[in-house]
Amino acid sequence: MTDLSPLLTDLYQLTMMQGYVLSGLHRQEATFDLYFRRLPFEGGYAVWAGLEPMLDWLEGLRFTEADLDDLASLGQFRPEFLAALRGWRFSGEVTAFPEGSVVFPHEPLLTVRGPLWEGQLVETALLNTLNFQTLVATKAARCVLAAQVGGGSVLEFGARRAQGPDGAISAARAAFVGGAVGTSNVEAGRRFGIPVSGTHAHAWVESFPTELDAFRAYADFYPDSTTLLLDTVDTLGSGLPNALTVAAELREKGHELRGVRLDSGDLAYLSRVIRARLDEAGFPEVNIVASNDLSESVIAGVIAEGGRVDVYGVGTQLATAGGPGGGALGGVYKLAELGGQPRMKLTGDPAKSSLPGVKAVWRGTESTEKGEAAGELAWDVLTLGERPHAGLRVSDPTNPLRSARLPAGLTWHPAREVVMRGGQRTRPAEALGTLQARARDELSRLAPETRRLLNPHVYRVSLAPEVAELRDRVAQQLRGH
Amino acid sequence: MTDLSPLLTDLYQLTMMQGYVLSGLHRQEATFDLYFRRLPFEGGYAVWAGLEPMLDWLEGLRFTEADLDDLASLGQFRPEFLAALRGWRFSGEVTAFPEGSVVFPHEPLLTVRGPLWEGQLVETALLNTLNFQTLVATKAARCVLAAQVGGGSVLEFGARRAQGPDGAISAARAAFVGGAVGTSNVEAGRRFGIPVSGTHAHAWVESFPTELDAFRAYADFYPDSTTLLLDTVDTLGSGLPNALTVAAELREKGHELRGVRLDSGDLAYLSRVIRARLDEAGFPEVNIVASNDLSESVIAGVIAEGGRVDVYGVGTQLATAGGPGGGALGGVYKLAELGGQPRMKLTGDPAKSSLPGVKAVWRGTESTEKGEAAGELAWDVLTLGERPHAGLRVSDPTNPLRSARLPAGLTWHPAREVVMRGGQRTRPAEALGTLQARARDELSRLAPETRRLLNPHVYRVSLAPEVAELRDRVAQQLRGH
Repeated sequence: MTDLSPLLTDLYQLTMMQGYVLSGLHRQEATFDLYFRRLPFEGGYAVWAGLEPMLDWLEGLRFTEADLDDLASLGQFRPEFLAALRGWRFSGEVTAFPEGSVVFPHEPLLTVRGPLWEGQLVETALLNTLNFQTLVATKAARCVLAAQVGGGSVLEFGARRAQGPDGAISAARAAFVGGAVGTSNVEAGRRFGIPVSGTHAHAWVESFPTELDAFRAYADFYPDSTTLLLDTVDTLGSGLPNALTVAAELREKGHELRGVRLDSGDLAYLSRVIRARLDEAGFPEVNIVASNDLSESVIAGVIAEGGRVDVYGVGTQLATAGGPGGGALGGVYKLAELGGQPRMKLTGDPAKSSLPGVKAVWRGTESTEKGEAAGELAWDVLTLGERPHAGLRVSDPTNPLRSARLPAGLTWHPAREVVMRGGQRTRPAEALGTLQARARDELSRLAPETRRLLNPHVYRVSLAPEVAELRDRVAQQLRGH
Repeated sequence: MTDLSPLLTDLYQLTMMQGYVLSGLHRQEATFDLYFRRLPFEGGYAVWAGLEPMLDWLEGLRFTEADLDDLASLGQFRPEFLAALRGWRFSGEVTAFPEGSVVFPHEPLLTVRGPLWEGQLVETALLNTLNFQTLVATKAARCVLAAQVGGGSVLEFGARRAQGPDGAISAARAAFVGGAVGTSNVEAGRRFGIPVSGTHAHAWVESFPTELDAFRAYADFYPDSTTLLLDTVDTLGSGLPNALTVAAELREKGHELRGVRLDSGDLAYLSRVIRARLDEAGFPEVNIVASNDLSESVIAGVIAEGGRVDVYGVGTQLATAGGPGGGALGGVYKLAELGGQPRMKLTGDPAKSSLPGVKAVWRGTESTEKGEAAGELAWDVLTLGERPHAGLRVSDPTNPLRSARLPAGLTWHPAREVVMRGGQRTRPAEALGTLQARARDELSRLAPETRRLLNPHVYRVSLAPEVAELRDRVAQQLRGH
């Protein structure tokens, strides 16, 4: 991420920047909100990820002389503009949900305040990374919650099908934030300190005279970390008996086989049979690892049929965030205020209108015996600053006809914090383990109906009256033009 | 791509490499085939992309001291293995389809021959890049062929929704190979020499007192490259009249408005109305650019309803290769021969068995008046070397019961070439424009029924008898164990 240049942007950001400079508008104070309109995977929540790397990026953002030469060669930029980019840096303020938070549609996840041209330039890169990492962290959380039902865990295995090298590396990071216990990707492991693990491939087995020779050799070299792949020839007829032979030989030498891996066939049936045979043979501690086009719904299906998988190696579907409602998160980045005046995009489609004004996001949690910080997440409310209170009539962000009064008994906290001021972080970067722990905690505090894989209850995100009124007033002014 | 480390790999590649070294197998001559089993997007073809960057990568592959230190810290690698990696480089031979070729399932797209441990290490990175770029180039070709029906072209616009920074950059490259005329991504433009273009965003309009002020300012700064976004307030009621005003003002000053852009609403209807009004007002040369969640099927739908779009800005769906059968290409990399002996993976699922032996891919083309090189692509045949001939009985790769005799009248060419020998390219890198031209040429030589978006005819890929016999013999031996 550190080698991201400021040119990883859409051309129009730069032509607009130059236009703002030539119009004398570039130093006007602007507020941009980043948010999405629809949850991915037809699910009930998203896990916010990618913030910490983007704060690093914002802090380090500079135009090098090579960048300026390359811009000059496009023939659209004037010398005085290019001169202004020399020494340019991001000096704005960033308010955001802490990374790992559980988040929902229509709430500003990240707000950039600062000179207009700065806010404009950073749009593309912010959206790129925050969209993708949030998508993968959410996918990981869905897989992890599905696996937990059967006591299993999730490993990220997707490098070979990920969308490009960084797709693999970023996906491993985001999957860890969402709850994966590790990755097979060595580069991601070293960059982010994520545990790396692996087994062996079919090619290993094919490189020896027999499968048993191959298993023995692997166990000999890695006596304490061997997981044997059972399906190169015949899973139950050959792979499993050979693995049991090697498990017994390892034990004689004072070691234990760590696991066996299934990469084809009926995972529910095979894992039940294999668990029973391993247990009978005195190897109840040998893990069963499963791979082969897994997803949260396949995991749930394996568990529903009594499958006994301990570790799910999720590859393609996790690294590319595939499946219904997946592939891309539709996060957008919209101007909300300029020079102290509210701004909005109206468009023909009311659901795509943006919310003007500088907004605060408050999160209401249920009170519990453990104290308010541990209560169930209940309701998020956007205001123009003030704290929500019981009895306040709030409305749905896309349907003004739907309104409700806030109940008593909720405790209201600001859901976001100022993470950057004057272009500098307000606190040190958070460790990846902290982000994973935050996601785990907040997911555990969601209603089970909202965590559900399919047809979840919709978590409430509402507008305080003054936000809805501001939107209606600005829309009316725009239509009046 | 150049900063890819050898650690962008799955851990098991490295543990297997060490195992091969400790077993004394690492220098055995191995042959690995890279291929996929199913076409993406439920389509009839794929466009092969990503080869040239991977040849660069193979040539430059080295373990730095930092890489070796990081591997040592994992606690699984012995000093003698790490010492062997110092000075390690890829010394193998690579045979592949030239980049931009139209390719099909079950044929080896790329074959690596060389010492076993070299072939094993490079698997993950090769699959990562070739899977992704082939997927995006194919998606681009589908969009481009759909747009051509109405005389339109395709721009890649997807950076903000792409899967990570490199997802955006690689996607822009692959989209160009597949026929996109340019990208909005400035970094991709400079890295690969792809034309970059852009318009302006809603924020630009919102930054001025009125939409007309915003349009005038943009046209003033970019009098020869202005495309105005019409839908910030009201496309037909406000955006279009204001654009016409600015078009007339530009013309008075000796310039011409380049285009208008639609980003919401009914694109077929709006583009027809806008085309008519632009023409009536004397601006038949002003382009209509459309964006907003486009895909090949949306493009085909717009054209079927008489839409008049000149340039389709395809974002999310192109950069992430979304849609049915998209998101990931399931390319695999399988051992085919070791130490002169054929190798295969059998598994429980016959369709997932690999093809043993060192294979040649021959492509049969129809003879035409223009000469054989320009004929329609007709049939691909895998042999163990020899050229196919009329009357040869060939079989389907996954269903041995389906066989056919090759017809007379086809000209047979080797479809692949040796692109690397001894770890060095056999020829200079091909320019991106050459790759795009190759894809355009080969797509034009596919039967229209195979190019179809939905329910295409299946292009024939067959096995010569000796390939099928070798597979059956090796499978029998494996089952005999």
